[in-house]
Parts: sequence; C-alpha cells; structure tokens
Amino acid sequence: MSIAVLYGGNRPNGNTEMLTKLVIQGLPVEEIYLKDYVIEPIEDKRHAKEGFPEIQDDYNSIIDRILEHDILIFTTPIYWYSMTGIMKNFIDRWSQTLKDEKYPDFKKQMSQKRAFVIAVGGDTPRIKGLPMIQQFQHIFDFIGIRFDGYLIGEGNKPGEIAQDKNALAIAEQLRKQLQ
Amino acid sequence: MSIAVLYGGNRPNGNTEMLTKLVIQGLPVEEIYLKDYVIEPIEDKRHAKEGFPEIQDDYNSIIDRILEHDILIFTTPIYWYSMTGIMKNFIDRWSQTLKDEKYPDFKKQMSQKRAFVIAVGGDTPRIKGLPMIQQFQHIFDFIGIRFDGYLIGEGNKPGEIAQDKNALAIAEQLRKQLQ
Amino acid sequence: MSIAVLYGGNRPNGNTEMLTKLVIQGLPVEEIYLKDYVIEPIEDKRHAKEGFPEIQDDYNSIIDRILEHDILIFTTPIYWYSMTGIMKNFIDRWSQTLKDEKYPDFKKQMSQKRAFVIAVGGDTPRIKGLPMIQQFQHIFDFIGIRFDGYLIGEGNKPGEIAQDKNALAIAEQLRKQLQ
Amino acid sequence: MSIAVLYGGNRPNGNTEMLTKLVIQGLPVEEIYLKDYVIEPIEDKRHAKEGFPEIQDDYNSIIDRILEHDILIFTTPIYWYSMTGIMKNFIDRWSQTLKDEKYPDFKKQMSQKRAFVIAVGGDTPRIKGLPMIQQFQHIFDFIGIRFDGYLIGEGNKPGEIAQDKNALAIAEQLRKQLQ
Repeated sequence: MSIAVLYGGNRPNGNTEMLTKLVIQGLPVEEIYLKDYVIEPIEDKRHAKEGFPEIQDDYNSIIDRILEHDILIFTTPIYWYSMTGIMKNFIDRWSQTLKDEKYPDFKKQMSQKRAFVIAVGGDTPRIKGLPMIQQFQHIFDFIGIRFDGYLIGEGNKPGEIAQDKNALAIAEQLRKQLQ
Repeated sequence: MSIAVLYGGNRPNGNTEMLTKLVIQGLPVEEIYLKDYVIEPIEDKRHAKEGFPEIQDDYNSIIDRILEHDILIFTTPIYWYSMTGIMKNFIDRWSQTLKDEKYPDFKKQMSQKRAFVIAVGGDTPRIKGLPMIQQFQHIFDFIGIRFDGYLIGEGNKPGEIAQDKNALAIAEQLRKQLQ
Repeated sequence: MSIAVLYGGNRPNGNTEMLTKLVIQGLPVEEIYLKDYVIEPIEDKRHAKEGFPEIQDDYNSIIDRILEHDILIFTTPIYWYSMTGIMKNFIDRWSQTLKDEKYPDFKKQMSQKRAFVIAVGGDTPRIKGLPMIQQFQHIFDFIGIRFDGYLIGEGNKPGEIAQDKNALAIAEQLRKQLQ
Repeated sequence: MSIAVLYGGNRPNGNTEMLTKLVIQGLPVEEIYLKDYVIEPIEDKRHAKEGFPEIQDDYNSIIDRILEHDILIFTTPIYWYSMTGIMKNFIDRWSQTLKDEKYPDFKKQMSQKRAFVIAVGGDTPRIKGLPMIQQFQHIFDFIGIRFDGYLIGEGNKPGEIAQDKNALAIAEQLRKQLQ
C-alpha cells in the first residue's frame, strides 16, 4: 500500500502540515507540496475543436507521481471555507487530463485508488468545513476514487493544532488504518 | 446602485457568461474577467513576524475597482463542484488585504455591499452545487457582505444554458431586482 | 402523467400550501394532507427476529395512494430547517414497507417515479433550507426516485409568499413542466 | 455541570444508544427516551389570533426536565439521512414554547446551554449525515445554544458500532471533555 500526500497549503510548518505528519509518521509516503510547482489554471477547452493545448508547466509531472500510488491524501488548510486555490487549480486541471491522449486510462487508474482528506481551519471548521467535505465526495465520486475518511482539525496560529485533542485522536486512528 | 461583475471562468462566451449577460443586460456594470489578470495565490503570512510581503500583480487593482461598487456579482462556472481555482485564488487573497495597511477599512467597506452568485454546471448543479453556495454564504458572513441571491444554471456544451428555462426565469427576476 | 401531492404542514392555507396550489393549478392531482391521518413513528425492527409488527394506522393507505401516481410532490413548510416531523415520520416508515411482504415491489415501484420538493421557510430558506434539499436527494437516491426539481420560497406570516417573486417565477416554470 | 441526554431512536439497545453510553459512562446524566412519551406534532398557530392551544401530552414535562441541565446531548439514529421523526416532532414544538407564557425565558434559558449531537447511521453517515449536522447548527444558532461537538458513528445491525474505531476514539474524547 503506497501513499502520496498532496499538500495544498502555502505556509511552511502550518497546522495542516503538522496534523498530516502525525498521520503519516513511520509510513512510507511521497509528499508533494503543490505550492512548489507551477500549475496553470485550466483553460476550458473541453468543447473547443482544437482541444486542449499542451501546457508547459509542472502539472503532468505531479499526475505521473500520484498515479504510482494506491492512496492519495489531500491535505489543505481551509482558506475561506474551502480548499486552497492552489489545490483547486490542480484539481480543475483533471478535466484536461480526462481528455488527454497521453493519459487514456486516467479515470480508470484514479478509480482504483482510495482517498483521505485532512484539513485544518480556524473558524469552527467542523461545521463550516463540511461543504468542502461534500465537494470532495462529489469530486471523488466523479473520478471514481473511494473516499475512505477525513479529518478536520481546528487551529489558527502556528502550532495550535496540538491543542485539538479530538483531531489528534482521529489522526492516531487514521495512522493505524494506513499501516 | 452600482454593480461590479467578477467572472471566474476561463472560456470565452461560456454558459455562465451568457447567463450573466441576461441578468445584467441594460444595466450599467463594470465587468472584470479574472482570467485576464495575474493573481498570485496567497502566501499565508498572517502569523509571520514580517507580515505579508507586497505582491507585484494585478490583485490590488481589482480590489480597488470592486470597492467602488455597491453590488458584487460573483459569476463562475462550476468546476469540480466549486468555484474555479482562479476565483478561489482571488478570494484567498482577501486574507492579505484584511491585514494590509493600505486597506484599513477593507472589511467595513465590503460589509456595505450586497452580493449575488451566478453559477452554471453540467452535473446536476442545483444539487451538487449547493455546497459551493453554502461556502459563499460563509465567505460573505465573514467579510460582512449581505448575500442577496443566487442563480444556478445547468449546461455543459456552449449555449446549452439557453435550454434551462428555470434558470432563465430566475435570471429575469434578478435583472428586475437589480434595476 | 399522474401527480400526488404530499402536504407535510400543519397550518391550513399556509404559505407552502399557497405556493403549491400555484404549481398544480389546472392539473389533475391527488392531494394528501398528512396531518389528517394517523401515522405512527417507525419502531425499528429491521433486525428483529420477529420482524416489523403490523401497524393499525393510516400509513399503508397513503402508500397505496401514492403508488398509483407517476410524480410525487413533497411539499412542506420548513420547520427548524427541515421537513416537518409529520412528514419525517411518514418517510421513516418506508424502512418498514421495504421489508413488508405486502409490498414486495415497493422499491421498484418507487424507482419509476419522479419527485419534486416545494418548501417555504421564514429564515433565509434559500440558504438554510439547503441541507434539507440534500437530504431529499439522499432519500430519493436510496429509494431510486429521480429528483426532478425543487422550489424554495420565503415567507413567514400567512400570505407572505405572494411577495416572493423569485418563488412565483419558478412555480410558474414548474407548472408548465408538469403539464 | 449537569447533563441531559435526549434519545431519538426507537430500538432498544441500538447502536446509537450503545455509542452514547460509552460517552456518558461514569457521568451523572438524566436520560430521556423520547419514544416513551406522547409528543404531539406541532400545530402551527404562531400567527393565529387565538394562539397555540394547550396540549395535553408529555412535551412540557420533558422541557421542564431539560431546562434543569447545562448540557444537552441529542442522540439519534440516522433515519433517512436525518434525525428521527420522533426527535423532529419534539424540536418542532419549540416554536410553541417560544410563544408560551409559561416559559417566558425559554430562549434565554436555552441559550445558556451547550449541546452535543451523537448519531449513528448505516449508509456512509460521515458524509450523508452532514446535512443533519448543518441543520443542528442552524437549530442551535436560532435558539442560542452553543454547539460544542458531534460524533457520527457507522453501524447497521445491532452491535456493529463496536467495530467503528474512529467513532470509539472520539467517544472517549467526548467523555473526557464532559467530565
């Protein structure tokens, strides 16, 4: 069982990253910090005659890396009650990959994976973060990934997540589940 | 009553734009296509000693423009069950503006505005687009904007929105409401 | 195309009923006011050896009536951000019917129907009523009914719904759709 | 800190009850099984000249009991993706109590309490149960109760909840939090 972690945040050592590290400690994982790559927003050419243009950025290389793994962990701070724009731009591009001749089996390959979501927010995230969880469910349903669990933590200032005993308890469960 | 329209899509003459044009026809509006501007993703420095760095992109110029208006229409195709990454990156940056000395009254000014959301999606958007509507409510609650209404249309291929009589009927209501 | 309307409210001539009457005017419908019948809450015997007991109330007679129709309109005032307890008790009993030898084809018969939801609430129902809409989607998904549309109106005091032009416009669309 | 538990289920020793017992073990609580009482559905007389009639059932006696406590735990199996009709009818009646001269301080008294929700469902409850959680948030917001946490377990056949390690871990956290 091989794991890729996709980080959506843009703060080093943020609460979301800290919580994720608790979940994956001791497990072999490939960690991908989306902020370190150039990922262009999708240009919607699904219905254009010419189709999608080839984009010269880092997006495909990340797709190549996640396709190697069985489990994908999407981990994002909750910015304005949803995933970060960085992570959203990454997912938006899946529409292009679904039409990309270089990835004829993209949906099939994705549908053999399982996903988890880890998110930390500062404003009652276990309530106001729920629409985001529902969106991830819709996203995973569409692409065919099985959504195996999520973990929402509460924290604002760096390090505050360590006070969220509820989140720490679930993190420990998740860690055991991933072993 | 002065209106700014923020377009989040990245397809010329898409369904969302067509539906929006029906709502604003005959009204004086300032239209802003976010895709035409460089908007960097936020780097979360809310808790950094040095604070947020000054970013050399088009973001502030758009803030300056929307602050001039009473009504903001956020109009976005539904990509993967949410607003586009382009629009999300724009909203994520509000966290920086809230701390920006050049905008000491940002929240106060925003809280005097009213907002509408127009969105079009292809996969049962009037159900699967609801988490996005709930997120806009949370966003507007936080910044203090009054959320005065939304319009969800269904369409996939260019022009299909013209078949969505339900959406057209509400568009007409919205147009009257905005006069 | 034959239509049954299930009223969940408990106020004569309430806003929800008024809005529903606009939708169904001129159409042949069977109207069922759930408040006029005795419907016991379900006693959960799904996993009991003895199974569900036969209940002597009006529930089965209502099931018999709705099974005759192609389209079901669930119309309920929004009490505390959800359908009324009266309507919920009716739907809860479906779990019994799914196990009832007298209704061996209940799920199959229901899955050939289409459903609409009409609801009116007083506290920003087009936002705070959305979880209820999502629940109806889950309910219809489980039983196999196609969810063809919903209409949320705003009103509190009797008659106020007549001021909700947005709701009236959609009611008119729905009426045409049902013809 | 004094605790009342409101059970909404209608199966003895169900999964929801088992999970709740883990949370409250060793704590002094008053347990109220709503199914054991007669609670009439509300008749909506908020806007009737004559007002609400006095209802001869057990509802007020339950209100009297919960008003004595600081913490309310609403515990319900998830029937059809929401709270049971039994519990919904109980909450629907709050609209009457809000107008009842015998309870002039109902809202004020309720607003000094804190609430928890415990729910168990059989069909991916940690996703499909989220609209119910959002509704509880709206309910508590309206009445002024602080929503301090929720616990969603998964189980169908009696006893299955014991396999949900995630739920058990949070139950243990909740138990400590309530001490």
